[in-house]
Amino acid sequence: MDQPQPDVGPLMSLLRTPIVAVTSAWQGRTNAQIAVSAIAASIVPEAPRMLVQIHKDNYSHQLISASRAFAINVLHKEQVPLVRALGFFSGHDREKLATVPHRIGVTGSPILDDCLGYLDCRVVNAMDAGDMTCFLAEVVDGAVVRPDAEPLWWFYARSVMPADWLQEWDIRITGSIEFARQHMRDIDYRPWQPQ
Amino acid sequence: MDQPQPDVGPLMSLLRTPIVAVTSAWQGRTNAQIAVSAIAASIVPEAPRMLVQIHKDNYSHQLISASRAFAINVLHKEQVPLVRALGFFSGHDREKLATVPHRIGVTGSPILDDCLGYLDCRVVNAMDAGDMTCFLAEVVDGAVVRPDAEPLWWFYARSVMPADWLQEWDIRITGSIEFARQHMRDIDYRPWQPQ
Repeated sequence: MDQPQPDVGPLMSLLRTPIVAVTSAWQGRTNAQIAVSAIAASIVPEAPRMLVQIHKDNYSHQLISASRAFAINVLHKEQVPLVRALGFFSGHDREKLATVPHRIGVTGSPILDDCLGYLDCRVVNAMDAGDMTCFLAEVVDGAVVRPDAEPLWWFYARSVMPADWLQEWDIRITGSIEFARQHMRDIDYRPWQPQ
Repeated sequence: MDQPQPDVGPLMSLLRTPIVAVTSAWQGRTNAQIAVSAIAASIVPEAPRMLVQIHKDNYSHQLISASRAFAINVLHKEQVPLVRALGFFSGHDREKLATVPHRIGVTGSPILDDCLGYLDCRVVNAMDAGDMTCFLAEVVDGAVVRPDAEPLWWFYARSVMPADWLQEWDIRITGSIEFARQHMRDIDYRPWQPQ
């Protein structure tokens, strides 16, 4: 960056969403990753859309780019161990869904049996951010699975994780931050027309 | 849409952010609009970024498209009247910031005197969604203004609004939904390269 940056970390941590598992599949391989960046992107009730940010060093980025589909599985408060299972290891190294009960949804993306609810999505546009891609997608199927459950927020998940999990997380996120730092300037910028 | 759509409204309402005022300026005109779609878009502490969805029928869309800048003013729990002042009327019809104390920030965008905190942003990329544009922006200035304050959520704001405000809101959102319904298929789709 060209100028000194303000310390806006605490403010920006307010501007994230509950924890979701983003699932994807392509040519027999499946993956799931954790995200706090899956946001509603439509105000039209019969045409729901989602917008999600996927980092390019995540294996999910390869699968979603190829299949042009993904599912958002909104996690509930009792699923902190799943955050570690899906978020602390890379799909490049292991088939993370091998031990997580799921079925295959309308778009071909895995849907977790246990979740607060899910949104099965087909990509309709994408924007390069250098370090990650913002995928805009229409929701083609979805349901509330556990209407009684509460969503899971990252600040809560952190507060109940044991110390050795937090150490694992710090190592993983440090690597991701370094990748992002190196790539976020490499935007494939496409000027748009003012309306 | 080509298939029957699921009723995922309650699920998607979980996947929004606290209420913010998005401010913008161009050639002497200023505007402010309300949004629940301003999300953090960077994991690199010294390079903060934001992603925000701006509907094309909002006057803000013209100003941001021209200035390539905006500010996110995160509102606090006591600012429900400001949600009406900035969110229930169009900048096409009135200079909404005329009676709201503010200064001009680094990017030229207005910064509200009273807010939980603000993020002054310069656009680095944009994606067409037909009905709206997703603007990706780097945060060039920002601060927490009221560290003691709580963020304002839409479900809370609705719960304390008088009945006639809710009627005003329903009329306004019905018009916005109709505009979105007519335009969300008109995406300027740009295929991307899988990484």
